[in-house]
Amino acid sequence: MRLTVYLAGEIHSSWREEIKEKAQTLQLPVDFVGPMENHDRSDAIGEEILGEQPDAVFRDEAASSFNNLRTQVLMKKADLVIALFGEKYRQWNTAMDASAALSLGKPLILIRPKELHHPLKELSSKANATVETVNQAIKALAYIFE
Amino acid sequence: MRLTVYLAGEIHSSWREEIKEKAQTLQLPVDFVGPMENHDRSDAIGEEILGEQPDAVFRDEAASSFNNLRTQVLMKKADLVIALFGEKYRQWNTAMDASAALSLGKPLILIRPKELHHPLKELSSKANATVETVNQAIKALAYIFE
Amino acid sequence: MRLTVYLAGEIHSSWREEIKEKAQTLQLPVDFVGPMENHDRSDAIGEEILGEQPDAVFRDEAASSFNNLRTQVLMKKADLVIALFGEKYRQWNTAMDASAALSLGKPLILIRPKELHHPLKELSSKANATVETVNQAIKALAYIFE
Amino acid sequence: MRLTVYLAGEIHSSWREEIKEKAQTLQLPVDFVGPMENHDRSDAIGEEILGEQPDAVFRDEAASSFNNLRTQVLMKKADLVIALFGEKYRQWNTAMDASAALSLGKPLILIRPKELHHPLKELSSKANATVETVNQAIKALAYIFE
Amino acid sequence: MRLTVYLAGEIHSSWREEIKEKAQTLQLPVDFVGPMENHDRSDAIGEEILGEQPDAVFRDEAASSFNNLRTQVLMKKADLVIALFGEKYRQWNTAMDASAALSLGKPLILIRPKELHHPLKELSSKANATVETVNQAIKALAYIFE
Amino acid sequence: MRLTVYLAGEIHSSWREEIKEKAQTLQLPVDFVGPMENHDRSDAIGEEILGEQPDAVFRDEAASSFNNLRTQVLMKKADLVIALFGEKYRQWNTAMDASAALSLGKPLILIRPKELHHPLKELSSKANATVETVNQAIKALAYIFE
Amino acid sequence: MRLTVYLAGEIHSSWREEIKEKAQTLQLPVDFVGPMENHDRSDAIGEEILGEQPDAVFRDEAASSFNNLRTQVLMKKADLVIALFGEKYRQWNTAMDASAALSLGKPLILIRPKELHHPLKELSSKANATVETVNQAIKALAYIFE
Amino acid sequence: MRLTVYLAGEIHSSWREEIKEKAQTLQLPVDFVGPMENHDRSDAIGEEILGEQPDAVFRDEAASSFNNLRTQVLMKKADLVIALFGEKYRQWNTAMDASAALSLGKPLILIRPKELHHPLKELSSKANATVETVNQAIKALAYIFE
Repeated sequence: MRLTVYLAGEIHSSWREEIKEKAQTLQLPVDFVGPMENHDRSDAIGEEILGEQPDAVFRDEAASSFNNLRTQVLMKKADLVIALFGEKYRQWNTAMDASAALSLGKPLILIRPKELHHPLKELSSKANATVETVNQAIKALAYIFE
Repeated sequence: MRLTVYLAGEIHSSWREEIKEKAQTLQLPVDFVGPMENHDRSDAIGEEILGEQPDAVFRDEAASSFNNLRTQVLMKKADLVIALFGEKYRQWNTAMDASAALSLGKPLILIRPKELHHPLKELSSKANATVETVNQAIKALAYIFE
Repeated sequence: MRLTVYLAGEIHSSWREEIKEKAQTLQLPVDFVGPMENHDRSDAIGEEILGEQPDAVFRDEAASSFNNLRTQVLMKKADLVIALFGEKYRQWNTAMDASAALSLGKPLILIRPKELHHPLKELSSKANATVETVNQAIKALAYIFE
Repeated sequence: MRLTVYLAGEIHSSWREEIKEKAQTLQLPVDFVGPMENHDRSDAIGEEILGEQPDAVFRDEAASSFNNLRTQVLMKKADLVIALFGEKYRQWNTAMDASAALSLGKPLILIRPKELHHPLKELSSKANATVETVNQAIKALAYIFE
Repeated sequence: MRLTVYLAGEIHSSWREEIKEKAQTLQLPVDFVGPMENHDRSDAIGEEILGEQPDAVFRDEAASSFNNLRTQVLMKKADLVIALFGEKYRQWNTAMDASAALSLGKPLILIRPKELHHPLKELSSKANATVETVNQAIKALAYIFE
Repeated sequence: MRLTVYLAGEIHSSWREEIKEKAQTLQLPVDFVGPMENHDRSDAIGEEILGEQPDAVFRDEAASSFNNLRTQVLMKKADLVIALFGEKYRQWNTAMDASAALSLGKPLILIRPKELHHPLKELSSKANATVETVNQAIKALAYIFE
Repeated sequence: MRLTVYLAGEIHSSWREEIKEKAQTLQLPVDFVGPMENHDRSDAIGEEILGEQPDAVFRDEAASSFNNLRTQVLMKKADLVIALFGEKYRQWNTAMDASAALSLGKPLILIRPKELHHPLKELSSKANATVETVNQAIKALAYIFE
Repeated sequence: MRLTVYLAGEIHSSWREEIKEKAQTLQLPVDFVGPMENHDRSDAIGEEILGEQPDAVFRDEAASSFNNLRTQVLMKKADLVIALFGEKYRQWNTAMDASAALSLGKPLILIRPKELHHPLKELSSKANATVETVNQAIKALAYIFE
């Protein structure tokens, strides 16, 4: 049994690499999917496909149509979602993806540092499991295969 | 035809009052519901009902179980959701509620200042309509009744 | 038992008035809802709420966000949908609403002149009933209450 | 990860060939499905299976039962739908398929020339992404696999 | 709390009258709905609305479009369905309505004489409750209100 | 693309063999599933597993629990359902399966001799396609693969 | 806004009375529904309606068909479910109702003494909120109306 | 056609081994999944991943978040669920899993000794089939493949 896991979260650091490496080390039968990690490409894809837009707001709207399309297709294929929150960035997109996962009946593992427990209390309560580090998330994932 | 509208957003300012007053002025047949607006009570409700919890994280978890229960019941009754974002506060709970609304098939009006267009681009693209002020949201709501 | 009926179709003629008058004559316990019938207002509502948009395409996008919001709320309330097609106008919006109705499990009565049977054959096959005139649609509606 | 894409649209031109060739050139792991492209066969299939029908309307109804059956089976298998609109033809069937895709939770890419922005404004607003050419649709599709 | 109950079954005898009278005697807060009980009208409604059809098969198809429309609207409003089977008539429509009720999550009470236990064994197993007489069905219904 | 087709209908004749042979001749990529065709085994399975039951009614109830279990698992796997009706037998189980298929969103092909058009008019109207012979059903099925 | 609350749990003690009294004291706009509380009647209803059954197992099966019918109708009407567990009785029916509530998207408040935390840990984790006494459950309920 | 079967029930005895052996002997194309069978590990997994918890209740809550996550993922993959009840243990988790299976539309086979017919009467009535031994459950499972 293979599982597809969607990794939701900021696309500025390389936290996904850490998860993939650990999963590979443990030989977990998991395929990872996620958003476009090249931040500049993610922002520019709208104008790249449709051409220049009137201003920054429309530029973002154009990019979002293609990014949301991509996320919708990939999350549909996922059996489980891991959402990571950190100190930096607004991460409203991450909260949106985490919540969408729950509504789609996909189990959700929330990774957040202890310091962010307060602003994430509601999402944490809804998630299947809340952990503080990538390591703990991997353990929760590996546990499914035992 | 009356509509029930859930107002999702931070509970620190009185933005909901402004919406309710404007709706009343226009005599819109709308009932508004929303989260517990007394911030201290919202944070304390867990320990108030269950007793003292071991630490701040568990205190938040306890409170969230009752706040999420309340939100789930009220949002179920809603015909439409208005979610407001502002500069202050993490507002991950707001993003979670806005996304839950969409997944439940409830139309969503997103209110956000122009300056926040970038971190909210994906949510904005998914929402039915995005406006910048409470006034505009009221106009969109009133339009439904014309 | 009252029924709410959504009237989907072009907003250039007064066909909805005919349906409402006939229903009233027969004293059918029906409430009718539908799109904004003032065509200019329907097209202008986007810029009216959000301000001037860069060009005609964005003007339409803005208006559509509010019109789709309105339609989604009203169609949710409907027990049945009547969709009318005629010779004039593209009516892709009508086809979209008719199809949305079917997918939402709402019964659909399709009104179309015999001459349009070919381009509407697939939609007609999916609809619960296909008639040629408003009179026949009213009879089908009245039959539900007998 | 392979994707199945349903190509909705008129069956008079060879636009699907263009999409398939471009996808093949980019080596996208995509399988394309769509309606019966042989227009005469599509119209005749009803009488071919059931025998001669009383008139043209019934001839169309018979054909549509088999064409809708085929579309329903194939669209169920699809992960994403691309709907193309052009100047010619009524294309109400295309609007119906595009809308059905959305209601089934299948992401939708709408291809339409800029000149048709007005009659397609509502469908465009609901679609995940709107582009103007087949080339742009392929780029949006390819982006999912990056 | 009032309940709406759909009475599915043959429209040749007056079994529905018996149920309604007994329910009234017990003062059960129940509203009953059901198919068109005037058998001739039920068969003729297609041609009455659409005009003469080519033959008996098309006559039936036309009538069924309006009868199914009516049933769909009324069954949507029902909280519970009672389906009665008897020795006479094919009653495939009854089996179809009973099964549709189950799939719609509506509780189903099946009334069938003991002699028909064999051909109805599968439907009986799926139904919430199986009884043999109208009296017993009324008791089951009354029990809900105790 | 392979399809799984559930063949619903009486288990007294060998009509399924005819369908399977024709499908094989045409090399259709189809897997067929259906109910237990050994009629005696189908009726006896309850007592075979659970032991002797008090009377014929309970004997049938026991058997139906295992037959419905089997049908539910197999129909879940099906992409399409073909339901055959004939002159003999009550076939209420067939009507139940056909209706369940529709409610599960599975396309349905109804096979019935012309003489049975009247008692099957409502089910026929709901089905995707209605044909009169196994040959025609095979043609409809083959058409999906063209 | 009134809420309907289903009270799931053993029918041997009068815990429901306590909840109703407290709710009335607080003037909560709540209507309570629940299973048949007369234990003997609940067990006997099957034979009362259908007549004597072969043995105790069939007696229970008959009763359960009517009790499950009743529960299904009432729980459908509920906005929220409260499930109480205590030391005595197997309460598998309670666990079944609590779980059904969750699956139906109905918020669930679980009441259980601290001593039962271990066997109820999984259900508690899924429930919206877990409390230890009827008093706490009432507070959670009242909080929704503040 | 392979089936995945989730085995719900207590994790203290080796009843699952018996089922797997018998299935293997009959060469049934079935893959079995189930909860973590190492009871100590199941209870300790919370603290193992998250670290020591304040007390036994929180220890259980932590473990349950990971066990429910695991169950949710595995049950999603299941085509059918077998739930076993025995004299020992509270088994509220088993009742919860059995009920969740039903709500997810997964067929359910209930195994329970005759002596437990009374407390399991409601669940038994809802299950597709109720048997008394593992042997009978295997027969019901094998029957699907005949």
